[in-house]
Amino acid sequence: MATLRDFLEACDALGTLRIIVTSSAAVLEARNKIQKLFYAELPKGKYANMHTEELEFHLNMDKIKQVKFETGEAKRGNFTTYAVRFIDDQEAIALSAFLQWGKPGEYQPGQVEAWQNLRDQYGESWEPEPVGEL
Amino acid sequence: MATLRDFLEACDALGTLRIIVTSSAAVLEARNKIQKLFYAELPKGKYANMHTEELEFHLNMDKIKQVKFETGEAKRGNFTTYAVRFIDDQEAIALSAFLQWGKPGEYQPGQVEAWQNLRDQYGESWEPEPVGEL
Repeated sequence: MATLRDFLEACDALGTLRIIVTSSAAVLEARNKIQKLFYAELPKGKYANMHTEELEFHLNMDKIKQVKFETGEAKRGNFTTYAVRFIDDQEAIALSAFLQWGKPGEYQPGQVEAWQNLRDQYGESWEPEPVGEL
Repeated sequence: MATLRDFLEACDALGTLRIIVTSSAAVLEARNKIQKLFYAELPKGKYANMHTEELEFHLNMDKIKQVKFETGEAKRGNFTTYAVRFIDDQEAIALSAFLQWGKPGEYQPGQVEAWQNLRDQYGESWEPEPVGEL
């Protein structure tokens, strides 16, 4: 079995993503790859972190209990969406990452295949092993 | 009294912000102005929305019960931070916007003054009026 850290490192292969974090009232969606992560152990948990000029991303890996691969139907346009959902211990979605398109329904060459490969490797729904020492 | 829509429109004056949304496990922080908002009434509530090439932002204005202006001490570096906190009905922070710096402690000319002006105009802590028809 794999840890979330292993999986996040593997997400580099997915290419450009729409990373989505939602609070009780707000939604922020940023277009970025998941790559060049660095790690830190804080009192709250073990964090994966990413910094770019325009973006900061932090994930408390200890709080993610399940990862799901989901396909869906785009709200606008007739095409399939490909998502990874990171689920917390309340069974709520703490983080989502969708394959990002240029135009609706267009993906980068090999991007959908990379998503399918990860799904086949990890399973459509799986529970990460605890992250060891960073 | 003002609505949250009035206030969000006024936030354009704050210049470049670090917009922060936090879920149970993830934090996403994006550098952007709050400007060119558009509005939509959805079953869940009245939303303010912003789209750029790299970013999408959505806020359910009906869920924000309080707005607070906060100064703080930067975690790294010896300078003051200037934030606006958007608080939900559980008294949790649903959205934060910090004045963004180039280098730590540097703000754009007039940026801190714009924040202080908004604070003086709205009050350090205030409760928005319900948003009317969009």
